[in-house]
Amino acid sequence: MQQTRLMTLLSDFGEQDVYVGVMKGAIAQIDPTLTVIDLTHAIPPQAILQARFALQSAFPYFPAGTVHVAVVDPGVGSDRRGIAVAVGHQPTHPQGYLVGPDNGLFSGIWAEWPILASVELDRPQFWRSPHPSPTFHGRDIFAPVGAHLASGIDLKAVGTPIAPASLVQASLPPLHQSPEGIQGHIQASDRFGNLITTIPATALQERSWAIQVGADLVPGQQTYGDRPSGSVVALIGSHGWVEIAVNQGNAATHLQLQIGDPVHLLWVNA
Amino acid sequence: MQQTRLMTLLSDFGEQDVYVGVMKGAIAQIDPTLTVIDLTHAIPPQAILQARFALQSAFPYFPAGTVHVAVVDPGVGSDRRGIAVAVGHQPTHPQGYLVGPDNGLFSGIWAEWPILASVELDRPQFWRSPHPSPTFHGRDIFAPVGAHLASGIDLKAVGTPIAPASLVQASLPPLHQSPEGIQGHIQASDRFGNLITTIPATALQERSWAIQVGADLVPGQQTYGDRPSGSVVALIGSHGWVEIAVNQGNAATHLQLQIGDPVHLLWVNA
Amino acid sequence: MQQTRLMTLLSDFGEQDVYVGVMKGAIAQIDPTLTVIDLTHAIPPQAILQARFALQSAFPYFPAGTVHVAVVDPGVGSDRRGIAVAVGHQPTHPQGYLVGPDNGLFSGIWAEWPILASVELDRPQFWRSPHPSPTFHGRDIFAPVGAHLASGIDLKAVGTPIAPASLVQASLPPLHQSPEGIQGHIQASDRFGNLITTIPATALQERSWAIQVGADLVPGQQTYGDRPSGSVVALIGSHGWVEIAVNQGNAATHLQLQIGDPVHLLWVNA
Repeated sequence: MQQTRLMTLLSDFGEQDVYVGVMKGAIAQIDPTLTVIDLTHAIPPQAILQARFALQSAFPYFPAGTVHVAVVDPGVGSDRRGIAVAVGHQPTHPQGYLVGPDNGLFSGIWAEWPILASVELDRPQFWRSPHPSPTFHGRDIFAPVGAHLASGIDLKAVGTPIAPASLVQASLPPLHQSPEGIQGHIQASDRFGNLITTIPATALQERSWAIQVGADLVPGQQTYGDRPSGSVVALIGSHGWVEIAVNQGNAATHLQLQIGDPVHLLWVNA
Repeated sequence: MQQTRLMTLLSDFGEQDVYVGVMKGAIAQIDPTLTVIDLTHAIPPQAILQARFALQSAFPYFPAGTVHVAVVDPGVGSDRRGIAVAVGHQPTHPQGYLVGPDNGLFSGIWAEWPILASVELDRPQFWRSPHPSPTFHGRDIFAPVGAHLASGIDLKAVGTPIAPASLVQASLPPLHQSPEGIQGHIQASDRFGNLITTIPATALQERSWAIQVGADLVPGQQTYGDRPSGSVVALIGSHGWVEIAVNQGNAATHLQLQIGDPVHLLWVNA
Repeated sequence: MQQTRLMTLLSDFGEQDVYVGVMKGAIAQIDPTLTVIDLTHAIPPQAILQARFALQSAFPYFPAGTVHVAVVDPGVGSDRRGIAVAVGHQPTHPQGYLVGPDNGLFSGIWAEWPILASVELDRPQFWRSPHPSPTFHGRDIFAPVGAHLASGIDLKAVGTPIAPASLVQASLPPLHQSPEGIQGHIQASDRFGNLITTIPATALQERSWAIQVGADLVPGQQTYGDRPSGSVVALIGSHGWVEIAVNQGNAATHLQLQIGDPVHLLWVNA
């Protein structure tokens, strides 16, 4: 197995407490020379779908073999499984390894990358302690297992193989396609108030399109700068989804739209 | 002295300004190959007891020899001392080094780990400049001294020995034990609204216990999942203190309890 | 060119989304062994002057040769240039490299450090892709170019030389000097509510001075501790500007002053 020595962390722990630092300490106890990159720790508490979007958005921008540890874990202490999964196109060189609870966090990545192998984490010799805290598997199981993988331990060493079909999925609401267009939903918003929809760029087939916002049709644009400051813009965001923004403003507050609200994309004659 | 090459930083600087980045620059000017881990920079301004709890919680999860620099420093520019302290059980291999102002920040760690040696930071050759800013000793004294220690400089080189008994203590309010139970206090809350008490797991002696919340008795549980969503849970948190939580909710807002409030733990017949 | 292997990042991306993590992924794809330090990602959206202050404050505290990537970029997707600039006193050993949009972000640094060379980023072989996202040049252009520079690529390789005089400036309002004193402005505030003015310590010429706050004159002090808790203090901040603070309090809320407000410094007889 390729040794990447690179890990990422994502959680809903925030930066107010020492939980994230403590996970990095647990990693350093295994191998202090690994590189650890924070994706974000500001996922709203227990918001699995928002974590799913964040992981899916970030995954393609990391080197092959990076180990991604994610801990948004409302079921910690219950009997939900801990898992490690290899994904990618080349079985001998996975694009990445995913480590965390089996609750669908990673299912946005699986929607785009084939699963090469998956294991249940049942080997305490790779944990921080054989008696993990019932409330903090991130520190005691997931970060240590991720550190072992990033240090070169084989995926099959850290757990017992399980069927990929048995992994828990967290699914987006389906798209509704019609001759007039596509109905999707808001799946996330970002710090700027940009609204990310569930409609992927690949669904646009190079046709001309617009987003219906109230009584208005907002035509799809190339960039924020194509319309005057303060006006609504629809474009393909840097993550590959159709996005609604306000040029130099905040679409979420301006349009009073939130996660889960429906979005209508209509085909227009170019 | 063992070279760990690993440092942590904790402060009340927040992440809005460049203060934390600048401390890391000062460290990199001494040795750019050190690894620096943030514990948190969101300690409320000048909240020494909250910093004390954070440091005590995080300390055991780092490799032996890690250098912990902490800067919550309402007395900066006054005549309070700067200190570096080695703690642990083995004089030749300290568990960690503590660097910061002598105001009690580290006294939670000292409550659990013996002090092996302590010095006052009075050797400007280990500072960023012999004329430190009167308002930013973190950048000009503590981070540089920490970097020298992490690079392998001996503790006794960076200052003049002082008596451990002379170090400033920041003490928690004492526990009151009675035949019925233990009265402690809320000492911290976290991002999830979980309330951490001053009652340590070691005080429970494997007896059955409950926490009095208003007119109710909340029995001690193993994990958040043991009671229905939204209900109050009492358990031993991952840091080793009795903790009050609301399953999938926020105990601090739900119970209207805050730091300093008393907490009553009662023995129950199993 | 000296290989520093050290980069900093500054942006208005916040820590809520994965944008910052993704820039670090793009850097790791080029060279996973570089060290990356966050200055701050909490610049208010598109606030170029606040970013200018943050960069100018942090720059002197990093090792010579550090590569600073900054992305506060309201003009992304328009025809504003991307630039890389070397600054310092020794052409063969620049103090630092600056990479980002040509919108004045770095003009606080240029006010203090000579420009040694500047290029326009027009060589896609140093980008993440020859077709960068029109909304995220930080990921696709600036972070990759910065990583190449930190890995040892020559500045002149990554773009076409441009005249330093052609670089966009973001200027502070000018100081007004009179026999009585100096009028400046509030240019920034920090997490503690300290108010940083546009009056540099170098303008004080070792004379005695005071700041006019309403009807009061607040004399210049050495440190926060020189006056009682809760009282207004005027001092030279750790960044080298005259600063107004409240000892153990918040000057911004206490004095109801904000960025852009005028500040009057008066000479006093010692």
